[in-house]
Amino acid sequence: MTLSFKLQHKDGNARAGIIHTAHGTIETPAFMPVGTYGAVKGIQPEELIKIGVNIILANTYHLMERPGKVIIEKSGGLRKFMGWQGPILTDSGGFQVMSLSKMSKVDEEGVTFKSHLDGSSLRLNPEISIKMQKSFDSTISMIFDECTPYPIDYELAKKSMRLSFRWAEKSKKYFDDRNGYGIFGIVQGSIYKDLREESIKELIQLNFDGLALGGLAVGEGHEIMVEVVKNSIEYFPLDKPRYLMGVGYPKDIIESVKLGIDMFDCVLPTRSGRTGKVFTKYGELNIKNAKYKKDFRPLDIKCKCAVCAKNVSRSYLHHLSNIGDMLASIYLTLHNINHYIELISDIRNSIINKNFDEVSEKRLKDYQKGDIDLEN
Amino acid sequence: MTLSFKLQHKDGNARAGIIHTAHGTIETPAFMPVGTYGAVKGIQPEELIKIGVNIILANTYHLMERPGKVIIEKSGGLRKFMGWQGPILTDSGGFQVMSLSKMSKVDEEGVTFKSHLDGSSLRLNPEISIKMQKSFDSTISMIFDECTPYPIDYELAKKSMRLSFRWAEKSKKYFDDRNGYGIFGIVQGSIYKDLREESIKELIQLNFDGLALGGLAVGEGHEIMVEVVKNSIEYFPLDKPRYLMGVGYPKDIIESVKLGIDMFDCVLPTRSGRTGKVFTKYGELNIKNAKYKKDFRPLDIKCKCAVCAKNVSRSYLHHLSNIGDMLASIYLTLHNINHYIELISDIRNSIINKNFDEVSEKRLKDYQKGDIDLEN
Repeated sequence: MTLSFKLQHKDGNARAGIIHTAHGTIETPAFMPVGTYGAVKGIQPEELIKIGVNIILANTYHLMERPGKVIIEKSGGLRKFMGWQGPILTDSGGFQVMSLSKMSKVDEEGVTFKSHLDGSSLRLNPEISIKMQKSFDSTISMIFDECTPYPIDYELAKKSMRLSFRWAEKSKKYFDDRNGYGIFGIVQGSIYKDLREESIKELIQLNFDGLALGGLAVGEGHEIMVEVVKNSIEYFPLDKPRYLMGVGYPKDIIESVKLGIDMFDCVLPTRSGRTGKVFTKYGELNIKNAKYKKDFRPLDIKCKCAVCAKNVSRSYLHHLSNIGDMLASIYLTLHNINHYIELISDIRNSIINKNFDEVSEKRLKDYQKGDIDLEN
Repeated sequence: MTLSFKLQHKDGNARAGIIHTAHGTIETPAFMPVGTYGAVKGIQPEELIKIGVNIILANTYHLMERPGKVIIEKSGGLRKFMGWQGPILTDSGGFQVMSLSKMSKVDEEGVTFKSHLDGSSLRLNPEISIKMQKSFDSTISMIFDECTPYPIDYELAKKSMRLSFRWAEKSKKYFDDRNGYGIFGIVQGSIYKDLREESIKELIQLNFDGLALGGLAVGEGHEIMVEVVKNSIEYFPLDKPRYLMGVGYPKDIIESVKLGIDMFDCVLPTRSGRTGKVFTKYGELNIKNAKYKKDFRPLDIKCKCAVCAKNVSRSYLHHLSNIGDMLASIYLTLHNINHYIELISDIRNSIINKNFDEVSEKRLKDYQKGDIDLEN
């Protein structure tokens, strides 16, 4: 165990903590923007720092394909390659076992993928994945697992969870302890309470630096996701960070923090930004909608992001989107990431100030109100 | 005449000056990045300021179509709409009379375009163009002219030049004098010395704030372009800025400044940036070329742009381009604009220091050397 996590405050089950790493500290609850290929699409690292991003996530599977291990290694790791000085967490490729299942074949030792780029064969197993993440100089490595789809039969979920556990053991074995670096275990077991319990209890024995809930945000919906978190969280150790993988909407994040989750990653703020979708305190809007053509307000009047602070209007953003200028994507992505980071920071402060329920309920209520239309 | 131009230094025929406008000062020689639709594609105004951009160019024709006059007017002008506080120059739509000639019809009073968006009819004439540019709050308006293609017969070129002159008279009439705002005349006459001379001499009578050479950079090539500039420049007044429209490559700029040109605009640094083409002190390169995959040097080791200064490698830029991340376009565009602005600034300093020939010859020589390949 080589990452230091300190739980600083609690309000109910909601937790505020800090993780010290070789590449900087991460305040929790934390949200990690996704930089699959070693770039948060369209956004410069300095812009992420200004927003207050502590840590970003990248994907082992994609980086193995492009640009490949050698290039990243020769650059001195992914952080140097992309010019990001803070911590990074790399997903192990386990999610792609599910998402690319049509092009992959699982056996006891690992997974063989057929590359979607050139049809070539690509092998991942615990040893390869963990060594790959080390070559990326990843601050937090994830064990190599099999992410299960939703829905899945109990027996299949159990069999898969057992396989993931054996891979977790191997992953731990191949992970080189280094000061300020860590490795997280991934809990599987789909929606089945006893499988999740079994998975957690066994993973605890392996003494990971943190535990993640995997196999969620795969189509089960908000209620089931919250239910699984609720049923699992009681078995999690108190002194380790808890990471809910791939989640989610602002509402998902608020309710999961309430249950005791510390870390999140999700493509929503970035991917949505590129398609015109905007997160504001008062719900979501799509800037492509014709009604924004003559709306000269900023996206969110109270927002302090670089875009709203300089009064970029909805009208201008609608125009940029209309003419297909990538500046639309950039501005919306910056705003959306800021929205998520501000949300998580507000939540963190409310935990410290012991008014989490009040703050989070107000945020949920405002969010449900929706955007205030212009008077005609 | 409501713009103040001060000629500060001369070295041979090369000139260093300053234009004071209502929206800030422009040091000449000046290069104007192109923001056709009210955005330099992918680049935030603050980034342009950091590079040292004094003034940007936008296009009346395109902005009329999208977002249209009303939106820009209601935003308080184009500068407010796009969040750019410095001066802007707007092209009048005259270039589109040529570039969209298949969809336009010229008569004595003006031009009727068929919109390439929805087939609707769009009318431009001196009155509409000048009033449109006023509604954009354009710092420097251009007269509405007919840009001629290359090659063109003498008689047609003459007829067109005469029409452009009549439109110049009307444009001047419809231009509202305002302190710190100006209007430039546009010289036509294709490659014909006597037509250019006639055009300039008549335009001088109308007392514009500056004169532009139009109808170049339309396929005539470097030598003919330089020849036309050389044959025209002697008739230009000394006390007004001279703008060579749509030009060009670094070499074109250096040689035109040598002849006495003060202002330039060109899509090259921006458009090229989006297709992987990079301008460096040692010539051009295309980042998509496979040899850059393992080239860990910055684009230009001596470059002080935001991208090279933070050591973004050719390898990373090749990767970004390969995965189709818009961050590649952004980084290359930033670098290219910086290259142009640094070039123009170096030239300006050399005029002040009376060593223009030495500096410009060294730049041309270095440029011809080409990029230094990595040793294998």
